Amino acid sequence: LDAEAVAAAETAQAGLVKPAGSLGVLEALSAQLAGIARACPPPVPAKPAVGVFAGDHGVLAQGVTPWPSDITFVMCNVFQAGGAAINVLSRAAGASVTVVDMGVAGPYAEGTGPGAELVSKKVRPATSDLAKGAAMSRDEAIQALEAGIAVADQLVDGGADLLVTGDMGIGNTTPSAALIAALTGTAADVVTGRGTGIDDETLALKTGIVASAVERIAEGADAIDVLAEVGGFEHAGIAGFVLGGAARGVPVVLDGVIAGSAALVAQGIAPTAIDYCVAGHRSAEPGHRIALEKLALRPLLELDLRLGEGTGAVLATPIVQASARILNEMATLESVMAGGQ
Amino acid sequence: LDAEAVAAAETAQAGLVKPAGSLGVLEALSAQLAGIARACPPPVPAKPAVGVFAGDHGVLAQGVTPWPSDITFVMCNVFQAGGAAINVLSRAAGASVTVVDMGVAGPYAEGTGPGAELVSKKVRPATSDLAKGAAMSRDEAIQALEAGIAVADQLVDGGADLLVTGDMGIGNTTPSAALIAALTGTAADVVTGRGTGIDDETLALKTGIVASAVERIAEGADAIDVLAEVGGFEHAGIAGFVLGGAARGVPVVLDGVIAGSAALVAQGIAPTAIDYCVAGHRSAEPGHRIALEKLALRPLLELDLRLGEGTGAVLATPIVQASARILNEMATLESVMAGGQ
Repeated sequence: LDAEAVAAAETAQAGLVKPAGSLGVLEALSAQLAGIARACPPPVPAKPAVGVFAGDHGVLAQGVTPWPSDITFVMCNVFQAGGAAINVLSRAAGASVTVVDMGVAGPYAEGTGPGAELVSKKVRPATSDLAKGAAMSRDEAIQALEAGIAVADQLVDGGADLLVTGDMGIGNTTPSAALIAALTGTAADVVTGRGTGIDDETLALKTGIVASAVERIAEGADAIDVLAEVGGFEHAGIAGFVLGGAARGVPVVLDGVIAGSAALVAQGIAPTAIDYCVAGHRSAEPGHRIALEKLALRPLLELDLRLGEGTGAVLATPIVQASARILNEMATLESVMAGGQ
Repeated sequence: LDAEAVAAAETAQAGLVKPAGSLGVLEALSAQLAGIARACPPPVPAKPAVGVFAGDHGVLAQGVTPWPSDITFVMCNVFQAGGAAINVLSRAAGASVTVVDMGVAGPYAEGTGPGAELVSKKVRPATSDLAKGAAMSRDEAIQALEAGIAVADQLVDGGADLLVTGDMGIGNTTPSAALIAALTGTAADVVTGRGTGIDDETLALKTGIVASAVERIAEGADAIDVLAEVGGFEHAGIAGFVLGGAARGVPVVLDGVIAGSAALVAQGIAPTAIDYCVAGHRSAEPGHRIALEKLALRPLLELDLRLGEGTGAVLATPIVQASARILNEMATLESVMAGGQ
């Protein structure tokens, strides 16, 4: 981030017509946006764009979730038609929705519907079963990362000035937990949760799978090796999306535990990319807290959301915009004292 | 609330195209809005209106804050001109701002500026010093409550479908702490905080004043008696605003600790009025947590805000609107399974 713009924002905040620090998190957020934009005041983000990265998971064969893999494909069509939660919340926030097929198992057409544009970056229909071996090859991981970067580029070229991460992938809290365990050095039973709802027996199974997958990772593996071993194609896409947003100097609002685990991969590749990230919310999934601690990000919302799709992140975008508006529009103490107001 | 509409909303949420319960707090909020509107889906609030209740406090003579009383008057003019934080955040949320002079010490003109309409309901220029005796008479408390009800009526008559509470009053965390201590039976040192920033010595002084003021309250005093003894005119106005909103069947989004203490007064007068309230945020002030527990409200935001004016509440309005939109716009599982999407 641009240290001069950050310092200018902190000075400006202290001179606005309010007690110093009284806008709490909004003040730090506005300084971050100034640092990202290399300008104080920073522009108010006007064109948020949600990227919903979708993929399927070979580990479903182990029974880690009661939901069938087909749902991933079905939901992509619901996104296109405009009836999903992410569509509703994106309309409310004035955000566009782009669905990226990173590795959906079903057949899949590109095209544009009333709810979303669909983009195919399919690496392969579903990852391999991470309970039995690497989820993908290192080459595939790199291909998926590059696809995420390309989507960020495409959206920024189209005028997006705030990127918002979303995901769709039945079973994707299993690779998320494995990524978080591996990249933060946390035990599997601490980071593995119930996803969208599983019983105790399934949770024990899921935790065991996460633990043994993480054990396979070789000493000295880098973040891309970890991603290939235990990640998902949508995680790779989101990690690339974060890297791409940071490279283009655009803030990235992260959604829940899938985004948190993907951001850890981005952090492993380029630690400063996280300076461009805002944690939109904290999900109910236990691993998300661990991921946010490692990322050193404080979530804007904590509303017990556990849907994914980008719902928590897009719900937080008005707060991000509001923080920039404060620096652009509030009167200064000096102008008020001079009778300028 | 209308139990039938609440039940219909809960049933509808369970049938939307997402795992049951995965939208967390948004689901309960949407059911509350349905119960308030007596309809499912509830209308999406389209015209939020912020009422900023302003008053001064005789207790300033004791030195409970370093800020001079004049600031209350100055800030009302900043609100009118449109340069305050509440103006910026209200513009972002599409909310109107009405400033109500409940008891500002300075001279004060009614009128409309680019930032806010000013309405005079001045009971008296500043309360009496609550360290020495009752802050106001019971008749004055009733007059101020009725003024708050009238402002709610006026805004709803003007088309407002979501009321948002705001406050301005140098020193008003002192009466807030006293109201919370008295109405929840909590010790003064637990509920008294640093407001917009005071040192340890001033905090000890403030806590002592709160403790002895609360001790004066007679056994069997009702909420209006408590309000008269230790409250402020803006607290009374906000309590009336809550009662007025509830009576008109309009949801009321509460701001921070001043609103929380005022809502306790409203709860004492008419407990069901709180069913119409949404806690916009939790402020950094310690008494706010105690007030919210008594009100049984969970705050939507926790961003360390401690500015008042209505800033935390108006920042939460997009979340309130989003929860209603979910029930209005999301596709059902049934329609998706039937290929309707």
